[in-house]
Amino acid sequence: MTPFQPGFSGSLLDRADTLRGDAAALANLLQHPQARLLQLQGFDPALTPEGALVWDALPGQDLNEDGAATLILLGLLDGIPHFVALQQHSTDAPLYRTPRTMQVLSLLGPQDMATYGTARSLIDWHGRHRFCGKCGGATLAHRAGWGRRCSVCAAEHFPRVDPVVIMLAEHGGKALLGRQASWPPGRYSALAGFLEPGETVEEAVGRELFEEAGVRASAVRYVTSQAWPFPAQLMLACIAEVHSDVLTIATDELEDAIWLSREEVRAALAAEPDARFLLPPAYAVAHSLLQHWAWPGEAK
Amino acid sequence: MTPFQPGFSGSLLDRADTLRGDAAALANLLQHPQARLLQLQGFDPALTPEGALVWDALPGQDLNEDGAATLILLGLLDGIPHFVALQQHSTDAPLYRTPRTMQVLSLLGPQDMATYGTARSLIDWHGRHRFCGKCGGATLAHRAGWGRRCSVCAAEHFPRVDPVVIMLAEHGGKALLGRQASWPPGRYSALAGFLEPGETVEEAVGRELFEEAGVRASAVRYVTSQAWPFPAQLMLACIAEVHSDVLTIATDELEDAIWLSREEVRAALAAEPDARFLLPPAYAVAHSLLQHWAWPGEAK
Repeated sequence: MTPFQPGFSGSLLDRADTLRGDAAALANLLQHPQARLLQLQGFDPALTPEGALVWDALPGQDLNEDGAATLILLGLLDGIPHFVALQQHSTDAPLYRTPRTMQVLSLLGPQDMATYGTARSLIDWHGRHRFCGKCGGATLAHRAGWGRRCSVCAAEHFPRVDPVVIMLAEHGGKALLGRQASWPPGRYSALAGFLEPGETVEEAVGRELFEEAGVRASAVRYVTSQAWPFPAQLMLACIAEVHSDVLTIATDELEDAIWLSREEVRAALAAEPDARFLLPPAYAVAHSLLQHWAWPGEAK
Repeated sequence: MTPFQPGFSGSLLDRADTLRGDAAALANLLQHPQARLLQLQGFDPALTPEGALVWDALPGQDLNEDGAATLILLGLLDGIPHFVALQQHSTDAPLYRTPRTMQVLSLLGPQDMATYGTARSLIDWHGRHRFCGKCGGATLAHRAGWGRRCSVCAAEHFPRVDPVVIMLAEHGGKALLGRQASWPPGRYSALAGFLEPGETVEEAVGRELFEEAGVRASAVRYVTSQAWPFPAQLMLACIAEVHSDVLTIATDELEDAIWLSREEVRAALAAEPDARFLLPPAYAVAHSLLQHWAWPGEAK
């Protein structure tokens, strides 16, 4: 991964979204002799020995008897359509990471990660939106897997993406990281929280920093973003100057929070044995955010 | 409105989200002698003669017979709780702007706009999520109006926010604006589109610019954000350098697109009679984005 390129970004697939609602074009894509289907193991990706996604030939399936889509069109690469199959078994709970997921992710490059992440977010969304929020009727997948339509009231539903702010507070040349009690020992990361209706990114950053650490943000600057497919967050990574380094930690959310110098963050990024803390995994946007903060001159 | 402050931002209310799940604290807030209830006219706000929101005394209501919340806690101001009532009548369709909404918004300041926008997004979300996506069971409002719980499978559902990218393409000192056929004559604005699962902000900007105008983005820089409560978008405003000014317009989305100089944008912002185009309303983030682009030295 090149410095500052967040995980789950850079998919090479053209989403070709204008084709999703075009029945004739879709039929052609499904007949494409090189059409590919993403191989999954449960909800995790299968991997080649080199650590790439595995693509099978398309088994010729398309629409099931009630006319619902059973495949999601992930996109085109050199004109070749790439699909993933909707999973028929129940996914009542959101698809979070398992230890196996994390192991697999550590082997994938960011572009394959991005393709897989899109597939996983959509599979999860379909599994948890089988009924219409408006009328309770059964919904069916349509638009090549990029929507569902109610079989009773015909309401259309679109995949959900939940914006999350994730941020470093900055004061006196140090950055604030926290840890949750459930994390591996020594792991610290950026504070984060869901953005709520009616908030700007900058307001959500300020609210979360005050709620979790008791610090008041002045200037908030956006750094980068990432899709986080567990199940479907949009991570908006920011740095916020705060007025004071005096912390009031929300102990129901954080077990601890500490101020770290650039030297200490660089030591952790270099995996030095005496580093003061353990980083989040390289595919997490908190890792990219810390790289950006640790070497500000090299920020793109 | 101060330059560059987007509409629908700067609400003075403390969201007090830790109180939402605290039954005892909520009961106290509902008994607060100065507790306030936002006055609505349909789904639009009532206004004082000075153009401010109208707050009534709380009528003493709280939980209905089945235990569901009937009020949304918008937040606290100087310790005084501010509520809005869930609307009992059906809102099957998303709450878009009407001409009356737009007229009212032109009178409100951004802080009141932000408070009202939060209320409106939540009312809309409740109206369209009365059934559980997982099992089809009826849902009931809880957590002071900041969630719904399924009466059958107990799944929890949280208010939805849909991220949207809105952007100026920039090339040779000019910015790209487009117009939709349904807009008022002469109106041009920034291109925009919903961010999809698996995309970064920067990738969504690039995809939308290519889909709608046929231009390829290189560098994408984030400028600002805004909550847009029709019904619940998070607008992420960006500027993208593009490789060429040759356009291929998606005519199903745009009627026209034009390149404008800073002088032409400033003339429109100054409402000069011979300006080449009409701006989006001042409360739209496209307006803030154009201000930012027109006077780059004054950006915060």
